[in-house]
Amino acid sequence: MPKYKLTYFNARARGELARMLFVAADKPFEDKRVEFPDWPKLKEGTPQGSLPVLEVDGKIEMCQSFAIARYLAREFKLSGKDNHENAIIDQIIDTLLDMFDPFVNIAFNPNEEEKAKKMEEFYKSTAPTKLGQLENLVKKTGKGGYAVGSVLSLGDLALYVYIENCGLADKLEKFKLLAANRKKVEEIPRVAKYLKSRPVTSF
Amino acid sequence: MPKYKLTYFNARARGELARMLFVAADKPFEDKRVEFPDWPKLKEGTPQGSLPVLEVDGKIEMCQSFAIARYLAREFKLSGKDNHENAIIDQIIDTLLDMFDPFVNIAFNPNEEEKAKKMEEFYKSTAPTKLGQLENLVKKTGKGGYAVGSVLSLGDLALYVYIENCGLADKLEKFKLLAANRKKVEEIPRVAKYLKSRPVTSF
Repeated sequence: MPKYKLTYFNARARGELARMLFVAADKPFEDKRVEFPDWPKLKEGTPQGSLPVLEVDGKIEMCQSFAIARYLAREFKLSGKDNHENAIIDQIIDTLLDMFDPFVNIAFNPNEEEKAKKMEEFYKSTAPTKLGQLENLVKKTGKGGYAVGSVLSLGDLALYVYIENCGLADKLEKFKLLAANRKKVEEIPRVAKYLKSRPVTSF
Repeated sequence: MPKYKLTYFNARARGELARMLFVAADKPFEDKRVEFPDWPKLKEGTPQGSLPVLEVDGKIEMCQSFAIARYLAREFKLSGKDNHENAIIDQIIDTLLDMFDPFVNIAFNPNEEEKAKKMEEFYKSTAPTKLGQLENLVKKTGKGGYAVGSVLSLGDLALYVYIENCGLADKLEKFKLLAANRKKVEEIPRVAKYLKSRPVTSF
């Protein structure tokens, strides 16, 4: 089996999906967490001056969080069973990013007053709209709590991580399928164990 | 063969990659171009209030421009030949979006003075950085002018469309592999014919 090393900050954010893929697929990996003061000197050695970076057998293989996630999903048989299912997974990912990208922009706004106003708007308008669209995507083929088809896939794990990243994990009352999906992921014993033992970080 | 209909605005932007996939793969499709005044009444019938939308055999199949592109690439055998090549294609797409997303934000800035300043900064700093990263990705496995491996793929077409979308098609002097790749795509007879006959739009 290849030796995997994932380098990311000591945060969930754009690194957690790869970690969850390793955990769900039961593949060992080195979870290298860089502290922010150490980042500047590491930055230059990365392909695009960004994290996460995935190394395989000691060699830098790739950057870009979703390229890494897609690679691992294909490697670990966590893609969809056909092109139709993969298209639903891709739509889930793109819709999650349409929600996460504005969330991040707001979260990094240095103007506290504007930030508070825009964050309120995010939770009142953007988030429910996007969650509704995600619920519709899960409705297409998801069965038994799964997001796409009736087995675990990249779709479930992407939903799990990015809904949490946007601070929406406990705001799914109106989105029954998303709430059931979240529970399904948390019930996987390896995942449950990981979620209890992972470092607690603020984002 | 399925009957494809792609609905998008009369613009390149986020619709052109799907069109180029149809053309390069020599698959007929209905190229439905919505004029902006007609959009509000069509919007409600789309899955996410957005275009492009892909219909297959008269049924709405999906939205999200890159989910559509990935679906068509898999359908038309324009993906990479293995997981490693697909990871390079995914990194090319994510890097193109890291360039296109800020470009769009600047292009839609209503403050003309700020827009001019930020656009200058985009062409001076963001664009060359991103083009350098894309050149490095092409360097990995691209042969004979192709972006990934030695056959045409989604990677070539994504580069072609999004470099043009960012107004960079004639600014590739320092990026020999990207320039050669652009030429390679333009030399495909079907593509050359399409490029000459497509509607001329400002973006």
